[in-house]
Amino acid sequence: MLGPNRYGKAETRLVRVSRDGDTHALVDLNVSVALSGDLAATHLTGDNAGVLPTDTMKNTVYAFAKKHGVGEPEEFGLLLARHFVATQPQVKAARVSIESFGWQRLGPHSFARKGDHTRLASVLVTDEFEQVVSGVTGLVLLNSTASEFRGFPRDEYTTLPETTDRILATAVDARWRHLSASGDFAKSYAAALDALTSAFVNTYSSSLQQTLFSMGSHVLSQRPEIAEVRLALPNKHHYLVDLSPFDLANDNEVFIAGDRPYGLIEGTVTRDDAPPAAAEWYS
Amino acid sequence: MLGPNRYGKAETRLVRVSRDGDTHALVDLNVSVALSGDLAATHLTGDNAGVLPTDTMKNTVYAFAKKHGVGEPEEFGLLLARHFVATQPQVKAARVSIESFGWQRLGPHSFARKGDHTRLASVLVTDEFEQVVSGVTGLVLLNSTASEFRGFPRDEYTTLPETTDRILATAVDARWRHLSASGDFAKSYAAALDALTSAFVNTYSSSLQQTLFSMGSHVLSQRPEIAEVRLALPNKHHYLVDLSPFDLANDNEVFIAGDRPYGLIEGTVTRDDAPPAAAEWYS
Amino acid sequence: MLGPNRYGKAETRLVRVSRDGDTHALVDLNVSVALSGDLAATHLTGDNAGVLPTDTMKNTVYAFAKKHGVGEPEEFGLLLARHFVATQPQVKAARVSIESFGWQRLGPHSFARKGDHTRLASVLVTDEFEQVVSGVTGLVLLNSTASEFRGFPRDEYTTLPETTDRILATAVDARWRHLSASGDFAKSYAAALDALTSAFVNTYSSSLQQTLFSMGSHVLSQRPEIAEVRLALPNKHHYLVDLSPFDLANDNEVFIAGDRPYGLIEGTVTRDDAPPAAAEWYS
Amino acid sequence: MLGPNRYGKAETRLVRVSRDGDTHALVDLNVSVALSGDLAATHLTGDNAGVLPTDTMKNTVYAFAKKHGVGEPEEFGLLLARHFVATQPQVKAARVSIESFGWQRLGPHSFARKGDHTRLASVLVTDEFEQVVSGVTGLVLLNSTASEFRGFPRDEYTTLPETTDRILATAVDARWRHLSASGDFAKSYAAALDALTSAFVNTYSSSLQQTLFSMGSHVLSQRPEIAEVRLALPNKHHYLVDLSPFDLANDNEVFIAGDRPYGLIEGTVTRDDAPPAAAEWYS
Repeated sequence: MLGPNRYGKAETRLVRVSRDGDTHALVDLNVSVALSGDLAATHLTGDNAGVLPTDTMKNTVYAFAKKHGVGEPEEFGLLLARHFVATQPQVKAARVSIESFGWQRLGPHSFARKGDHTRLASVLVTDEFEQVVSGVTGLVLLNSTASEFRGFPRDEYTTLPETTDRILATAVDARWRHLSASGDFAKSYAAALDALTSAFVNTYSSSLQQTLFSMGSHVLSQRPEIAEVRLALPNKHHYLVDLSPFDLANDNEVFIAGDRPYGLIEGTVTRDDAPPAAAEWYS
Repeated sequence: MLGPNRYGKAETRLVRVSRDGDTHALVDLNVSVALSGDLAATHLTGDNAGVLPTDTMKNTVYAFAKKHGVGEPEEFGLLLARHFVATQPQVKAARVSIESFGWQRLGPHSFARKGDHTRLASVLVTDEFEQVVSGVTGLVLLNSTASEFRGFPRDEYTTLPETTDRILATAVDARWRHLSASGDFAKSYAAALDALTSAFVNTYSSSLQQTLFSMGSHVLSQRPEIAEVRLALPNKHHYLVDLSPFDLANDNEVFIAGDRPYGLIEGTVTRDDAPPAAAEWYS
Repeated sequence: MLGPNRYGKAETRLVRVSRDGDTHALVDLNVSVALSGDLAATHLTGDNAGVLPTDTMKNTVYAFAKKHGVGEPEEFGLLLARHFVATQPQVKAARVSIESFGWQRLGPHSFARKGDHTRLASVLVTDEFEQVVSGVTGLVLLNSTASEFRGFPRDEYTTLPETTDRILATAVDARWRHLSASGDFAKSYAAALDALTSAFVNTYSSSLQQTLFSMGSHVLSQRPEIAEVRLALPNKHHYLVDLSPFDLANDNEVFIAGDRPYGLIEGTVTRDDAPPAAAEWYS
Repeated sequence: MLGPNRYGKAETRLVRVSRDGDTHALVDLNVSVALSGDLAATHLTGDNAGVLPTDTMKNTVYAFAKKHGVGEPEEFGLLLARHFVATQPQVKAARVSIESFGWQRLGPHSFARKGDHTRLASVLVTDEFEQVVSGVTGLVLLNSTASEFRGFPRDEYTTLPETTDRILATAVDARWRHLSASGDFAKSYAAALDALTSAFVNTYSSSLQQTLFSMGSHVLSQRPEIAEVRLALPNKHHYLVDLSPFDLANDNEVFIAGDRPYGLIEGTVTRDDAPPAAAEWYS
């Protein structure tokens, strides 16, 4: 029996240059489309009458970038998703997920790619609803103090000492669900990013969980247009080096930046009066 | 308001050597643990009384590997997950996800790492149920013919020609849910892997969707202990090179192996009389 | 017969926090050490009397970070390399290669990792000489116009049309050799990076080779302390999308950002009165 | 002043299917071409009269795959390199480097990609000489005993205990230079790979250096057509877990597989009567 299914074109790489006289602007996206609906036939019999080619989805991305421009990634995603639902009767739902890479202006037509984080947008459009999620990934933040971890339970396998001063570092992966499918997404994104960052910076942390909740709730308190925030925060461990064999003290100065294993803290912070999500939204 | 949350230690790398006289055996795992339950306090107030350190989870992985041995990854995962639920009252659910890397024997104590695919196991244990999922990732399969794609709808953005002979290639990412938390997981895995592979090989493919359904249903027909199969199959496009500028024919002989974009086909095949999953199971 | 050989500890990850009251500073390095000298015995007979453990090299990195501080990566590399040559009689040459990751200050003890490029330093110390190389990798630059490629030879396999307007993009990987092992490396690095970037921005490019030479020679004209510059510049192709099937023009507005293949342009620009390198220096 | 330089097309991905009736064969290559010669003009003035487009190199790879077939990667590399030197008067040297990915046959037209290692070939052709290098990368080997490390010098930063029983594991990266540009490269490669592997398996190791020398010299003793072997062997550390806090012994049974840092042992083993390399050959 065929269960849930979808298909699409993943990772269409689009660079869109806009020319305003000699001054150019640049948008650099990685666009993934996934469609679902009445698609049983191709699975069961190989009848492709309903299978719009994934190559067509790619073409549509490029053609729409020319015809309509790109704008904010949430808007471009909605444009594409609505198109597939509106024009293909067998398509009941379209998800468009976009990574947006930032570039710093160096001159009228010159740019340097920023690598500090990637902006995300993911929209889901059906006949019944439109759901918009924004997000960020790869934002690495570190506090070199103002973080402790103590008061935890100890079982027979616990050897970790308590600490009142440690490095707290993470690579923020965050998604937030908008209450509405329209809005000023550029402004909203910038403010949400700022809220996440400033909450990390300003929270005296008893645990990364506490920092997570602070980050999520700060976004909600700053941005009325956002219904809930989902955070996945790896605890990028920095281990204090034992320098005592060399007769050296190490007063939180010299650390090993660890690779694996790492703690992973995941949680959602929700506005209590927000309507529930129309569909699974953060993976 | 705090919504769904969990935390744990990700990617604990364990190599377990078993010595039977001069002949050694090797198990090579990457173990991730995630716990959930009554964890609101640490998020809201920084009270860590319920937060078993993720460092302890790591220690437990290594200690259990010694005390109990490892066995099949599904079994080792269950052992760990049951331990956390049984011993930490605030923990209501434990998920343990394991990657198992294969090694080929070269001698009594010598091995070469296989790189052709990775075996997966993911278990979820609560007071009410135990759910076991097995899987494979990174298994790259290719048919150099016996694949076509035609009869699809054409809109104004469709330029793809129909084809009756193409390369079909994918990197299989599959998960399958077991009906029971006990069984011969070694035998089941080997047989499921064989069923996936032989279905790919033996299906004359009208679409990758058809191949996906064939792979999933073949697993179910061969393995009564499996309730459902989830497949995510990237269509690793091989583009026929246009050699006509060089007065050369190209009768499906010379291809570009493309990187991005790629088609992505995702679907589930379910045994119609199987009980539903106790919890979300395949991501 | 044993030929050239060396050994060492690669990728020691060091984070060094310096505390000036409440204001902290952060250095984040990846340090690799390679020693060579009278090391035949261990290869030929397993006699390790001359093999300082690579674990000791790692310890030395951490201990020196505490004892001496880190400073500029060139200086820290020299400190380490001199130590190994001075204290281990069998060691005739020490190479220390360092990646330095940048962090942006967010507060007195808060930082965000920059991801836009990585600073490099590589020093080679022997009894006879000291050679210092600085560099940068991962700096992605793009001009959306002011680049052409025409006038090239055509053979029977040439299909590329000439163009007078294209995107030129690259990920700069550059190394430059200093004339002296002392100097103001912080200032030199910042100025060299600026010279590379501004030359890329300001060169009307007939080929990426021309841009490469302009970048290298601009560094030399700006920085008397630098003897030569080695650049490896991938041509990150941006392909103009053919939108004519959709009755759309594409006047250098919509591009595919390609992954593979890519052009790769490598070249050295040398100050003609500079002494030759004491040893191979840029790989 | 312009110093050494070269340019070319990197990472042209070629899949070549050969059809012998219903039975197909598959070759899967990643081909990189680099040309050097009289190329100053394009660097200095942007005059591209000598710059055969890298796009043409890519076309040539595909056209030659059809016209001449592929054969062994060393042969295909020579075919391409000779072509560029012979047909472009300004080109004085051509290097072609090839990665060859293995596939296991599953049926007449069905294959599974092997991931256990990658075969390498790199040829350099000039008017004066032809030099052929073969190699392998990504071959991960492990001995779970028969490895010790002791008798090493101790300085003030040495804390490593001596061991008479440890895991020895490495990811073999090896290149070997052939005496001649013709030969049975398929047979030679298989035998060299076997010699490397069997020497690793059969050497009781006092140091990874000793194992390295044993591997290189075994290749030379088995293969008269090979002049020298270059090996780069990361010491993939497996750390014994301290289980004493849990009242458990750990008699070389439970290990942490470390990521970073790692030892890195590099060395060359040369046939003493072999003519020297015509040019730098192993990077």
